[in-house]
Amino acid sequence: MTHRFRDFLALEPLNADELTFLLDQSKSFQEIQRHPLKKLAVLRGKTVALAFFETSTRTRISFGTAASRLGADQMNLQAEASSLKKGESLLDTVHTLDAMKPDILVMRHASSGAPAFAARHLDIPVINAGDGTHEHPSQGLLDALTIRDRKGTIENLNITILGDIKHSRVARSNIHLLGKFGCKFTLCGPSIWVPRELEQLGAASGTKIRRVFKIEDALEDADVVLALRVQNERLYEPSISLNDYILLYQLSVDRMKRAKPDAIVLHPGPLNRGIEITPEVADGPQSCILEQVTNGIAARMALLFLLAAGSAEADALPAGEGSSSSPNASASPQSAGDQPRNRRSTDKRE
Amino acid sequence: MTHRFRDFLALEPLNADELTFLLDQSKSFQEIQRHPLKKLAVLRGKTVALAFFETSTRTRISFGTAASRLGADQMNLQAEASSLKKGESLLDTVHTLDAMKPDILVMRHASSGAPAFAARHLDIPVINAGDGTHEHPSQGLLDALTIRDRKGTIENLNITILGDIKHSRVARSNIHLLGKFGCKFTLCGPSIWVPRELEQLGAASGTKIRRVFKIEDALEDADVVLALRVQNERLYEPSISLNDYILLYQLSVDRMKRAKPDAIVLHPGPLNRGIEITPEVADGPQSCILEQVTNGIAARMALLFLLAAGSAEADALPAGEGSSSSPNASASPQSAGDQPRNRRSTDKRE
Amino acid sequence: MTHRFRDFLALEPLNADELTFLLDQSKSFQEIQRHPLKKLAVLRGKTVALAFFETSTRTRISFGTAASRLGADQMNLQAEASSLKKGESLLDTVHTLDAMKPDILVMRHASSGAPAFAARHLDIPVINAGDGTHEHPSQGLLDALTIRDRKGTIENLNITILGDIKHSRVARSNIHLLGKFGCKFTLCGPSIWVPRELEQLGAASGTKIRRVFKIEDALEDADVVLALRVQNERLYEPSISLNDYILLYQLSVDRMKRAKPDAIVLHPGPLNRGIEITPEVADGPQSCILEQVTNGIAARMALLFLLAAGSAEADALPAGEGSSSSPNASASPQSAGDQPRNRRSTDKRE
Repeated sequence: MTHRFRDFLALEPLNADELTFLLDQSKSFQEIQRHPLKKLAVLRGKTVALAFFETSTRTRISFGTAASRLGADQMNLQAEASSLKKGESLLDTVHTLDAMKPDILVMRHASSGAPAFAARHLDIPVINAGDGTHEHPSQGLLDALTIRDRKGTIENLNITILGDIKHSRVARSNIHLLGKFGCKFTLCGPSIWVPRELEQLGAASGTKIRRVFKIEDALEDADVVLALRVQNERLYEPSISLNDYILLYQLSVDRMKRAKPDAIVLHPGPLNRGIEITPEVADGPQSCILEQVTNGIAARMALLFLLAAGSAEADALPAGEGSSSSPNASASPQSAGDQPRNRRSTDKRE
Repeated sequence: MTHRFRDFLALEPLNADELTFLLDQSKSFQEIQRHPLKKLAVLRGKTVALAFFETSTRTRISFGTAASRLGADQMNLQAEASSLKKGESLLDTVHTLDAMKPDILVMRHASSGAPAFAARHLDIPVINAGDGTHEHPSQGLLDALTIRDRKGTIENLNITILGDIKHSRVARSNIHLLGKFGCKFTLCGPSIWVPRELEQLGAASGTKIRRVFKIEDALEDADVVLALRVQNERLYEPSISLNDYILLYQLSVDRMKRAKPDAIVLHPGPLNRGIEITPEVADGPQSCILEQVTNGIAARMALLFLLAAGSAEADALPAGEGSSSSPNASASPQSAGDQPRNRRSTDKRE
Repeated sequence: MTHRFRDFLALEPLNADELTFLLDQSKSFQEIQRHPLKKLAVLRGKTVALAFFETSTRTRISFGTAASRLGADQMNLQAEASSLKKGESLLDTVHTLDAMKPDILVMRHASSGAPAFAARHLDIPVINAGDGTHEHPSQGLLDALTIRDRKGTIENLNITILGDIKHSRVARSNIHLLGKFGCKFTLCGPSIWVPRELEQLGAASGTKIRRVFKIEDALEDADVVLALRVQNERLYEPSISLNDYILLYQLSVDRMKRAKPDAIVLHPGPLNRGIEITPEVADGPQSCILEQVTNGIAARMALLFLLAAGSAEADALPAGEGSSSSPNASASPQSAGDQPRNRRSTDKRE
């Protein structure tokens, strides 16, 4: 199967087939995370530029580790150390990075649309690693991967999202992905964080989204509960106080009893234990929080591989590169043997 | 041809033959930037120490990428995170880095002469990545490479440099390199930034340097225009204001008409669009700004390769390493085939 | 010989045989530092997570370089850029790192016991890279390695430690290691930095520790002098001033005459030249300060190799990996030939 992806900027425009394709691709990279040696050679000689114009720890490390495990080199730009402080424009910065000839650009930015803007001006693929309040599509992908593993399907589930949905790119990416599979959403949180406009988010694809302001009602019959991080800087009186949030919206074992017995809990991290979620829930059997982290590497390996491993590379590689007989293929024979199939089947420029 | 370089600290002491040799070496690494796979194995097992005691984004990423593309590992020291804040002396810091046994040290420092000072105390080669107002020799090299590509020669050109030449190590490195090839320089900017002493910069090599304070006159008959970055912190009344600078010295399409029709424009970056240069010029057909960035990787690959790939390494490498039959040689056969010749012909310790 | 190390958290619980084993292991990695190519392939495909929750330059670069020279990839977390600022708990941070599936965690933290705490919760090995005022065990190991090289033995030596011993994890790790070999300790410094409790440090192993407040007496008959760094932030009146410290405790050539003629001087760095040590002593023939830095890489390569190269890896590696006939073995035949023996002999899971 060929794919039409040049960039990976948002989940909203992708259809169910494309999303399923991405999830299936991620699946093969999930297996690699369980091997004693996790390193492939499929992006050897390629360079992944990581441009993070907004502070990030886990997403940056996750993409960097994904790049390393594919054999790629990295080019790291972090905003704090960058020329941006000297007044250079965003476009000049990305053009400059691009002139150093990376094979793909992974970009996080505080402004919605910045990665799409970069993609319009560059010839290399661009991956959105989170932009403003728009989307965090690789997070949406890893969340769906986690749900599919645990529930066996991502179709027709009841998904409850808790917290500051208004500002959450994670919530948007989840809605855009899971909505394509018939999932129904219940959004719950202080009313200022769950405005009426959110109900229109999935209108184009007919996704059912309702707002519920009592957490017990919102959790009723949920298959999946996604607790969002409370950003301290967004807790302001008189709309809501930290104590009120805990009292009214904290995800606790008791409240989780309203959800289906086999419901699972997701959180994009980092956790505010004791605020949006109790330690009992975060560490309990329904929690998938650490699986999400592991799946993040797999999903990002899949994305980097699909977008950065062009046919040009396949042509230039010596015969046998990546096969189990090569001393460079650090992964175990099983996984290395899978790769040539993946590459052939997913190459977009053939 | 053998070469006499142990370190690469400045362009001023190099003669035209040596400079031509460095430009020719860089040429072969330029070609690699166009390959789908840009990685060589020639510095595999070597370590490049990058010690940046002054903030840098593009030069640091450029040297780091050059090191990666040669197969080398990196050791990164950035001043902000360094022991310098704890009061350790510069010499102790570089001795400590050296004791970790890198194969080469790339060093940027706010004090002119700091890399030369380090080189006197260390046995490993040192590359100056910019020191105070002294030199930025790898920038000089990449600028000359860019000019030679576009103009077909670096001989007898009219070069106009605009801006704060007094504080510019980039301007000095350009004058020291291009002056050896008979280029004539016109320096233009506010008088406080273009002091009379600058006319003596090329005295030893007979380089003609004149100061002109009207930009229209300075651009007359120019083959190459080098616009320098205006450092905001150096704009102070009563000498000059930002508005005055724009009015009197900004490089615009209109003013560029005074230069030769095929004149080219260089800028070391990062750009202050709308200050020292208009967007129309920066993005226009005469601009070589992004080519400079790409050539920076090539020039730095050449320097790292020439200085760090000693004969000891050649002896220790298994036969065939770097040849196209090796699974480790990620570059295409053409480029990999060139490397053994380069290494043999340029080795400094034979 | 098999070993029982799962983690490397402290020297205190290790016995003389185990410490000798670690020193002997480090020895083979010392030789590699003298090769033109220092890179092995023994941890290829493995990932070393470096989590530094306290500022560090040399220890972080040392562990990172050690990881690179073993062929491992790195996952870098520095506290300043981390989620800790967002309020995530230490345990959540290390669990998150762990979920990205590194093979080993190297951790520095300002709180004594933090690495041990992490080790109790993780399945991967943990190396303590310095925790509070508890231990800095890799520093203790490299110090002992340096002493053994210079003195031929680490048995029954007179060790004088100068400075702020109360807050020094380096002093503690040295006492816990060298005390097991019959070394006797003389602690000297301002009384507030040399409290009586320190005499009990080696009580369990019968180590002799005495406090002496006159430096000339403390140096009498010393085989080894360990000068500690004076932390400016710990110099406060009325207990002691910088001038008083220099006057009373600075290690000078003159004072060194009280020690044995072949006594050696160690310092963990970074140096405060002219404060705890004079330049003449720091740069003199008795100083081992730079050898300590070089040995640091060797000791850390040994630790990473012993703990991260499990039998699972040995099984998965193609036959011949790491042998001198492999094109991936960048080290010279001698060292590469040693590695399979080391791996087989030290593997902990056989």
